[in-house]
Amino acid sequence: MTTWLDIADDDPFGVDHLPIGVVTHGDRGRFAAVRIGGYALDLSGAGDYARLFSGETLDPFLAAGPLAWRGVRSLVTAWLTDEAHRGEVEPRLVRLDETTAVLGFSVADYVDFYASEHHATNVGRIFRPDGNPLTPNWKHLPVGYHGRAGTVVVSGTEVRRPHGQARDPDGAIRFGPSERLDLEAELAFVVGTGSAPGQAVPVGAFTDHVYGVCLLNDWSARDIQAWEYVPLGPFLGKSFATSIAGWITPLDALSRAWVAPPPRNPEPLPYLDDTATPAALDIQVEVRLNGTVISRPPFTAMYWTPAQLLAHMTVNGAHLRAGDVFASGTVSGSQPDQRGCLLELTWNGTAPITLLDGTTRAFLHDGDEVVITAAAPGPHGPIGLAEVRGRIVPAASATPG
Amino acid sequence: MTTWLDIADDDPFGVDHLPIGVVTHGDRGRFAAVRIGGYALDLSGAGDYARLFSGETLDPFLAAGPLAWRGVRSLVTAWLTDEAHRGEVEPRLVRLDETTAVLGFSVADYVDFYASEHHATNVGRIFRPDGNPLTPNWKHLPVGYHGRAGTVVVSGTEVRRPHGQARDPDGAIRFGPSERLDLEAELAFVVGTGSAPGQAVPVGAFTDHVYGVCLLNDWSARDIQAWEYVPLGPFLGKSFATSIAGWITPLDALSRAWVAPPPRNPEPLPYLDDTATPAALDIQVEVRLNGTVISRPPFTAMYWTPAQLLAHMTVNGAHLRAGDVFASGTVSGSQPDQRGCLLELTWNGTAPITLLDGTTRAFLHDGDEVVITAAAPGPHGPIGLAEVRGRIVPAASATPG
Repeated sequence: MTTWLDIADDDPFGVDHLPIGVVTHGDRGRFAAVRIGGYALDLSGAGDYARLFSGETLDPFLAAGPLAWRGVRSLVTAWLTDEAHRGEVEPRLVRLDETTAVLGFSVADYVDFYASEHHATNVGRIFRPDGNPLTPNWKHLPVGYHGRAGTVVVSGTEVRRPHGQARDPDGAIRFGPSERLDLEAELAFVVGTGSAPGQAVPVGAFTDHVYGVCLLNDWSARDIQAWEYVPLGPFLGKSFATSIAGWITPLDALSRAWVAPPPRNPEPLPYLDDTATPAALDIQVEVRLNGTVISRPPFTAMYWTPAQLLAHMTVNGAHLRAGDVFASGTVSGSQPDQRGCLLELTWNGTAPITLLDGTTRAFLHDGDEVVITAAAPGPHGPIGLAEVRGRIVPAASATPG
Repeated sequence: MTTWLDIADDDPFGVDHLPIGVVTHGDRGRFAAVRIGGYALDLSGAGDYARLFSGETLDPFLAAGPLAWRGVRSLVTAWLTDEAHRGEVEPRLVRLDETTAVLGFSVADYVDFYASEHHATNVGRIFRPDGNPLTPNWKHLPVGYHGRAGTVVVSGTEVRRPHGQARDPDGAIRFGPSERLDLEAELAFVVGTGSAPGQAVPVGAFTDHVYGVCLLNDWSARDIQAWEYVPLGPFLGKSFATSIAGWITPLDALSRAWVAPPPRNPEPLPYLDDTATPAALDIQVEVRLNGTVISRPPFTAMYWTPAQLLAHMTVNGAHLRAGDVFASGTVSGSQPDQRGCLLELTWNGTAPITLLDGTTRAFLHDGDEVVITAAAPGPHGPIGLAEVRGRIVPAASATPG
């Protein structure tokens, strides 16, 4: 489709995309918006749907469910493609560079999975060199855990290097700023429609509950994590900050991106059977560190698909709430330049990478900026997922205790 | 102190206690209340503090902080001890047995620790018989993980037996209702005052942030948990339901319960040093299964104290929000009849316990009811923590997939 707006036909934020978010603006304050080209389109005048955007969050919109999601999408599409609406719509367009994206919804529960076989294998080799890289359960169920919802922050938020305990190679316990701060390039799925307690959400109901997808950076302090994570999993090595993009791409924009899931062996249990639908997503991720592209992980390479993650997360009867976020875990492909975190890219720091400015990195330095972007096939060129950006700032000077 | 109300001087919910909660009542609807003897005292008329109780949750009250908490406590104490207030207060007293407690606040993040050395040692012996029962980190930091905030339910809510994957002893993967459903008797600490992102909350600031304590049952499907928990920790084996008492006991009611922390070796790092204050709590827990007392775990036996749990949880800069809940992990003492879960009490089902009705239990049966209570020393006899009660109902008949 074409729009009367002055944007290129192949703009990654064209009229086929229409991601949603919340921004602040000097004059207009805080409002829910659709991102279109270089603009944020204020949704507070969204006709019959205006009541969903009267607050300062997307919470009512997310909870309203697929009919409302599609209704708003149809309305905004009509606004932008029919010249007749130009007069009423133009005053609601705000230049994107005059706005700041904020965290647009209340994160309910945040779950992080571990769905890339390449990532899990590499991490297993690094952290458990004497055992099988994959744990025995890995190909039977999507391994996952709950993260800290309260420290999910929007793209652009500075990330402070955390303090914590770690064990040095000589066995000494060290306390101080993390010395192995890492990024993890992930996709996150945002739940809109909740579910009833005690009822599993089957693979086939994925699009009834999930509104959309966005990029996520699961910042990880590898030294803290390695010391703390046995036996109850990652905790303080992750909980200091998780960055999420400011714009959520609706699943409705990704109709051209669904592909067949990868072959699985052994065959998953029936509740994880996703072969009836094209359940995998063809999304190409790109990770930049201080402007240097350090990785291009393909989301198609993920062993477990998003619908399987959702089905597994709820198979015990745990219900969904609007604002639940579940992430894929680090996206890594089979090739060395497709690895989605520094732990893998530098093999736990033993093989530092070189940036365009000639400096090397084993892990993140203070001042480093990580930008993750992604693209998916759309009807008129790629759909571009909104970036997730974050810069590391030095650890707090005052140490506790 | 004495009250004009018709309750015994040694009532565990006397005027020295004053736990807070939210109830529903046929005529009055939903309201915030203080529990006093056999009554719920409606707080909606709480003078200058009424604005904190105008909604249907305790969220504004919790977030208001220690000055407000003490102000409300002083006001309610005056109401109940000064005969002059009788006329205005009596109409606000509702018989407790005409009310139902509901989940009174929005659970923000839920963290569960593993702070009992006896529990961790027993579990380690059962799940990892070939290794050291305690992992190398255990005496250096309070091991913990994030649970699912959305499935925290109030005492009295039925708990549906979850479906899930498990691995049988012969290595076969089984899917179906959990066959090893367990309880875990814990204490939970409810955060009121939030903290700033990036700033650790020191041990000494515990009472500035934590409003109170209540009992919690961390229901656990041991078969699901054992199969899924390596390497990222418990997930579906716990996330189906966590029961929390309907009444929160304010820390201000526990001034007689603080005792010296247990000796620790090695000495904790400075940020975990709690020796300057009496940081342990003398709370005696009791676990009943279908009316039979099956355990009496002493909270004084916990290795890590509540203030240490809070300091550790935030030492990486993770901030607190009103409604954050962190739990102790299973409370177990040194004696076999002080173990706070069936996994330990029956040694993973190999030594079933016998109930008063002559039946035996390895793990929980459908229809079983677990009631956990606790008592702490108060100025005039014990303060009784409100029970957490839950009955197991059969797994959903429709299996997903």
